[in-house]
Amino acid sequence: MGILQVKHAGMEPAPENGTQAHPQGGYRMFSRIVDWITSDRMQLINITDRINEIVRKSGIRDGLVHLQSLHTTTAVFINEWQDALLHDVRSFLDEVVCRENAWRHNDPRYSDCERKNADSHLRGMLMGQSLCLQVRNSTVLLGTWQSIILAEFDGPRSRSMSILVSGV
Amino acid sequence: MGILQVKHAGMEPAPENGTQAHPQGGYRMFSRIVDWITSDRMQLINITDRINEIVRKSGIRDGLVHLQSLHTTTAVFINEWQDALLHDVRSFLDEVVCRENAWRHNDPRYSDCERKNADSHLRGMLMGQSLCLQVRNSTVLLGTWQSIILAEFDGPRSRSMSILVSGV
Amino acid sequence: MGILQVKHAGMEPAPENGTQAHPQGGYRMFSRIVDWITSDRMQLINITDRINEIVRKSGIRDGLVHLQSLHTTTAVFINEWQDALLHDVRSFLDEVVCRENAWRHNDPRYSDCERKNADSHLRGMLMGQSLCLQVRNSTVLLGTWQSIILAEFDGPRSRSMSILVSGV
Repeated sequence: MGILQVKHAGMEPAPENGTQAHPQGGYRMFSRIVDWITSDRMQLINITDRINEIVRKSGIRDGLVHLQSLHTTTAVFINEWQDALLHDVRSFLDEVVCRENAWRHNDPRYSDCERKNADSHLRGMLMGQSLCLQVRNSTVLLGTWQSIILAEFDGPRSRSMSILVSGV
Repeated sequence: MGILQVKHAGMEPAPENGTQAHPQGGYRMFSRIVDWITSDRMQLINITDRINEIVRKSGIRDGLVHLQSLHTTTAVFINEWQDALLHDVRSFLDEVVCRENAWRHNDPRYSDCERKNADSHLRGMLMGQSLCLQVRNSTVLLGTWQSIILAEFDGPRSRSMSILVSGV
Repeated sequence: MGILQVKHAGMEPAPENGTQAHPQGGYRMFSRIVDWITSDRMQLINITDRINEIVRKSGIRDGLVHLQSLHTTTAVFINEWQDALLHDVRSFLDEVVCRENAWRHNDPRYSDCERKNADSHLRGMLMGQSLCLQVRNSTVLLGTWQSIILAEFDGPRSRSMSILVSGV
């Protein structure tokens, strides 16, 4: 269904027959908790620069960076950072999970939650609260148009994300 | 769009100029397959305690835990574990992927699948069958309201999940 | 809500009290960029064999393989590879994100994007551009019916995916 090409990436390939340890001496990890104070009920925040700053600080050159928001009514995902498109993202999420449905989580007969935020929970669940990306040359590997976006679905709040960089 | 604060997590940060191997002596892995026997066509199962038990057994203190359900008609994701909200999750998934559509996978003219479970496949695909989370102090890192949920979309069945803990 | 069984997987479990390094001598990484040239606006490509080939070449026996498409208008996910179901996947994605909505990203009053591809961006965001799976015995761990699918949402184009295998 498509012509296939293989390019060799910059990282030195492992020997095909060996179990040689990485020449740089082994696996390392580095972690940080980062907080954001949001200002709107639904808000999109471009966190790409912040994540890259932490990756650089980690001293890890190649590996993975794992992002995990610690809140059910948030999400983290990738998209282009363009005003018109961000408006569409909010419209889409408003439409795919309707705030006004007769959700039980918002109904005092079934739930003691006073935030009436069933829609926020469903949006967070749908979009996901964790994201794993590759690190190459001490930078998050991203395509030209890819930005890392933290989505607030029940703000304004203070929100924490745990970032774990691992690799060599 | 938000005030930013950085907190230092408990894990010792890597030196910013170094390639020092981890003081604890290196990377380890630990894996298990866990089975669940489900009882309903659509069923949500809180697997947080089970995953934490495996993480503790692994002897790995800091790193990642990767969960992978081995079935296309299941999913694994995070949400709050509250009865009213779980009802809403089921309603939302019922609505966003309608079981009664004229799906080809359910039509003997196009498909030899006798389970008529196109909706189950689409729900599994939408929500995702794998999840990666951080491990900190021999525990899965989760926010106060975050539970790990295994979703059955075509039960009752026996379901297997592979769990890989990696780190130091 | 389900009877629980635990099976021991083939990988040697770590000692419960130790920090012993992995007997095979440590963590390694291997990465490749793979390109596909797509032929349709929305197209699903089964990349399972290609990913397995790279995993075998890596020489890494147990660990994780991380797939990251470098384009916002693509996605990578798991589903059964069956013609009738693939038709349903396309129908579902067409329906859940309607191409004809009055998206701002497609409106020259708000956006300088000439591709009119708001739907492609929203589908890519919804389904996700990265996927992490386990590697066991030099093969991607997949259930019987699980295939790895690269989705093109704005083709025909040339598309790149970065694949990182890590482990021992």
